[in-house]
Amino acid sequence: MQNTYRLVIDCPDQTGLVAAVSQFLTDHGANILEANHHTDLQLQRFFMRHEIEADSVQLSHKAFVDAFSKIAQAYDMRWTLNNSDTKAKVALLASKESHCLIDVLHRWHTGELQCDIPCIIANHEKMREYADWYKVPFHYIDFSDKKVAFAEIERLLDHYQIDLTVLARFMQIVPDYLCQKLAGKAINIHHSFLPSFAGAKPYQQAYERGVKLIGATCHYVTTDLDEGPIIEQEVLRISHSDSSLDMVRKGKRCEVNALANGIRYHLQDRVIIHQNKTVVFA
Amino acid sequence: MQNTYRLVIDCPDQTGLVAAVSQFLTDHGANILEANHHTDLQLQRFFMRHEIEADSVQLSHKAFVDAFSKIAQAYDMRWTLNNSDTKAKVALLASKESHCLIDVLHRWHTGELQCDIPCIIANHEKMREYADWYKVPFHYIDFSDKKVAFAEIERLLDHYQIDLTVLARFMQIVPDYLCQKLAGKAINIHHSFLPSFAGAKPYQQAYERGVKLIGATCHYVTTDLDEGPIIEQEVLRISHSDSSLDMVRKGKRCEVNALANGIRYHLQDRVIIHQNKTVVFA
Amino acid sequence: MQNTYRLVIDCPDQTGLVAAVSQFLTDHGANILEANHHTDLQLQRFFMRHEIEADSVQLSHKAFVDAFSKIAQAYDMRWTLNNSDTKAKVALLASKESHCLIDVLHRWHTGELQCDIPCIIANHEKMREYADWYKVPFHYIDFSDKKVAFAEIERLLDHYQIDLTVLARFMQIVPDYLCQKLAGKAINIHHSFLPSFAGAKPYQQAYERGVKLIGATCHYVTTDLDEGPIIEQEVLRISHSDSSLDMVRKGKRCEVNALANGIRYHLQDRVIIHQNKTVVFA
Amino acid sequence: MQNTYRLVIDCPDQTGLVAAVSQFLTDHGANILEANHHTDLQLQRFFMRHEIEADSVQLSHKAFVDAFSKIAQAYDMRWTLNNSDTKAKVALLASKESHCLIDVLHRWHTGELQCDIPCIIANHEKMREYADWYKVPFHYIDFSDKKVAFAEIERLLDHYQIDLTVLARFMQIVPDYLCQKLAGKAINIHHSFLPSFAGAKPYQQAYERGVKLIGATCHYVTTDLDEGPIIEQEVLRISHSDSSLDMVRKGKRCEVNALANGIRYHLQDRVIIHQNKTVVFA
Repeated sequence: MQNTYRLVIDCPDQTGLVAAVSQFLTDHGANILEANHHTDLQLQRFFMRHEIEADSVQLSHKAFVDAFSKIAQAYDMRWTLNNSDTKAKVALLASKESHCLIDVLHRWHTGELQCDIPCIIANHEKMREYADWYKVPFHYIDFSDKKVAFAEIERLLDHYQIDLTVLARFMQIVPDYLCQKLAGKAINIHHSFLPSFAGAKPYQQAYERGVKLIGATCHYVTTDLDEGPIIEQEVLRISHSDSSLDMVRKGKRCEVNALANGIRYHLQDRVIIHQNKTVVFA
Repeated sequence: MQNTYRLVIDCPDQTGLVAAVSQFLTDHGANILEANHHTDLQLQRFFMRHEIEADSVQLSHKAFVDAFSKIAQAYDMRWTLNNSDTKAKVALLASKESHCLIDVLHRWHTGELQCDIPCIIANHEKMREYADWYKVPFHYIDFSDKKVAFAEIERLLDHYQIDLTVLARFMQIVPDYLCQKLAGKAINIHHSFLPSFAGAKPYQQAYERGVKLIGATCHYVTTDLDEGPIIEQEVLRISHSDSSLDMVRKGKRCEVNALANGIRYHLQDRVIIHQNKTVVFA
Repeated sequence: MQNTYRLVIDCPDQTGLVAAVSQFLTDHGANILEANHHTDLQLQRFFMRHEIEADSVQLSHKAFVDAFSKIAQAYDMRWTLNNSDTKAKVALLASKESHCLIDVLHRWHTGELQCDIPCIIANHEKMREYADWYKVPFHYIDFSDKKVAFAEIERLLDHYQIDLTVLARFMQIVPDYLCQKLAGKAINIHHSFLPSFAGAKPYQQAYERGVKLIGATCHYVTTDLDEGPIIEQEVLRISHSDSSLDMVRKGKRCEVNALANGIRYHLQDRVIIHQNKTVVFA
Repeated sequence: MQNTYRLVIDCPDQTGLVAAVSQFLTDHGANILEANHHTDLQLQRFFMRHEIEADSVQLSHKAFVDAFSKIAQAYDMRWTLNNSDTKAKVALLASKESHCLIDVLHRWHTGELQCDIPCIIANHEKMREYADWYKVPFHYIDFSDKKVAFAEIERLLDHYQIDLTVLARFMQIVPDYLCQKLAGKAINIHHSFLPSFAGAKPYQQAYERGVKLIGATCHYVTTDLDEGPIIEQEVLRISHSDSSLDMVRKGKRCEVNALANGIRYHLQDRVIIHQNKTVVFA
């Protein structure tokens, strides 16, 4: 993998903005591998992502940040500059369903997901065998006292200096204080096409309503359960002839694909959260 | 088109049921063109549809009904026997959006939808030009008094002996008494993936929630608005880069396809309503 | 609809390119509504499209072209600047299948496709009724002598100063000289997922091969039959239970959607042809 | 999982066929969990699958076979009766791409695929770690001499009494004699939407042709490379902005899903091969 800088910006829409950024990049010899722009005409807001060959720029990460800060200030930008060589540290939280955990681990193992996975945290011991095989430290958390359990999770996330927390079918409601601490840095997979069937037992809800498509939603965690900014959604067609096992199988397929895309977009700095929505430069 | 009988049955699941029906059909020389079975194991209920070459059976429609009634009674069946030559009379109700109306008319005109369309009813005059071209009687209804308006609609449906009422983006809430009268005989198209975004302005709701797929739902009309049994749903992927015009365009595509399938399934006796869900032998 | 300029560029990839274009646009006060970039790393070629609010630029179309020509030359650009107010003239060529013709006409009539349609040309008289309703001049062409027929078509395209020729299931092989004359300005819809089932009777071929998805391909016309640059493709799932009528129905749905997208992308200057492929800024 | 009998039949279409089978099942008290019928009107051939609660039938497998043989003979049936408790023995053949192998193993491990996997055979040592984790015997085959290699594979398939051989991206052309021996009992996954891009490097072919959808095809192995009866196909949309890594990632998703469905349909006796096509009672 080539080392790249990812410059991600959003700011009020203004004439001259793109020219200023482009001129900056040109002045520093940047070879742009991918560029994405989006103007939200309703919000009068501009979103932009550049992926730049790191070696083409005669700037260290720090020097780049310093140099760009002036432009950023002039245009009132929210912005980040990440280096693809600096891998994010991702914690996986699981319960007793293994399909999402396994899928993420495999994509990580084969290099599709570029990150470090320093720990797996679960409230079921049976996830340990997967952690062991992938040689990832495993932490079992006893949930008999939820308050204690989440304190321990928070401690682990701090200890491992986690950048992204992935709730891979974790099935426990994260307390508000932790949601707030992890804002924009925690991703959940919900097994329905939100906003339909939020909350518990979405497959059962889907079965009872008699919908003809089943889905999954990958979204950022917020204090409003299942209401966070959506990153990715997947659906598959179902019919009366699908048994509950068929629905679960199709649902799992939606889940793993929505989650894998959601994580990848986040890790590649392709997602910009604005208010309760996302711009995803897929 | 070949003339066919469509024998559609649902009843409590019982051993011997299929054998009894099959033996009856064999005894009358029925050439079966298509057969579909479904057992709902949870409800212990059986659903079945046969499409039979009419000429192969030495029975008039009336004689068939009489002969089959004994079996039907023995197994406590809800059942219908329709003849494909007896076309259903379909009324189209429209407002000011023409895409669903036009699409249904074109599919009817080209023979994809096998029915008669004796009238188009609308609360906007601009739909008249489409009615005229397709040589379908057009009735403009003034909605300044809704009660009067729906009384007139009911009168027209009676007058034309309508079998199926299609709300092709009709945008008016049908009063309860009329919903009840038309139970199982009125189809609506809602421009969202229900149960998400029921009620008014579903595209606006979808935009605000930031969903990544847009959809449409074809369902039977009931007194609970947008809560009736779902026949068909369609979705298309959207992203931040889709303008509101793009969303409308993609939404329309979902609508026309969900509605066309829904109507066709109904006209071909492929839908069995049970409680608030459907079995669709697509 | 807002009046916009669409500046579409492709050229060898070079540092400074985006800065130069952006600075030019900033200098003339351009309000950019939409911007798309693509770098083909393998070809070292850059593709770019800007949609600009026309009123924001203090330049007539001619003045814009003159001013931009210097940059264009400096970077060896292929480029176009179109004004959304200058509608393309589109000719529709049809045979005896009406679904694509009707669909395009309806989208045009309702404003989804922004163009003029000065003529419909067909080798079947039955298309005339659609032309009449939409008040588009209709030309029947007798194909008993193909050479004469295509000469007449060419004469009509010239006469109406056609910008885009759409083969809406035209089913006649366009002679090489005319393909060359219309290069990049003629779109065909083929009723298969190309490169599978090129040539005659694709549905029959699909049936015989037993594929599980049926499709349609919208592509530019070239002298190699069904080998031109692909703009859009659609597929739908089929199964053994789909009759030949079902396959045709599903195929038609693929056709109208692929064709409508292909035409719209072309009319909005979203397609850049490079060698035998397209970049589509959808 | 409930123990079931799967009675799968195809034969010339004849009146009385369904009645005869249904009466037989009724006479033996069969509780039918799922029934599927299909009549190919063109071929005048009938296809049927019943899934029956084993405990409801007062017949051992052998007694069932004996009793049913008379009906089978009378109607010239090809037929099988399998018991869900008798698990098929599946051999997985892999090369150096692990995604299909891993996916099948995980679905087997979690019970989605009901079979035994007595061995994994590969021409790359790196697959051994997956085999070890899942505790499946692993056989490395040296392909320096292909003739010897395939003789060894054949020996292993015989030794393990393999019922289904799955080429999970095996990338070696199976010799004709072995294709014939494994007819209807070997499944391949090809990484394109066949018949497009048969043979080597389908992703490269797809890239060069500029198609807008990428796919995968699961089919039975025959002596004609990539020409066997298709069981399942999957596609995903691609665009110019997809890198070759993106194409591979999307392609893999198509592959694992098409392969998993193909294997499951086969293991559940849902596939009937007729000539070069399949009926799949999905």
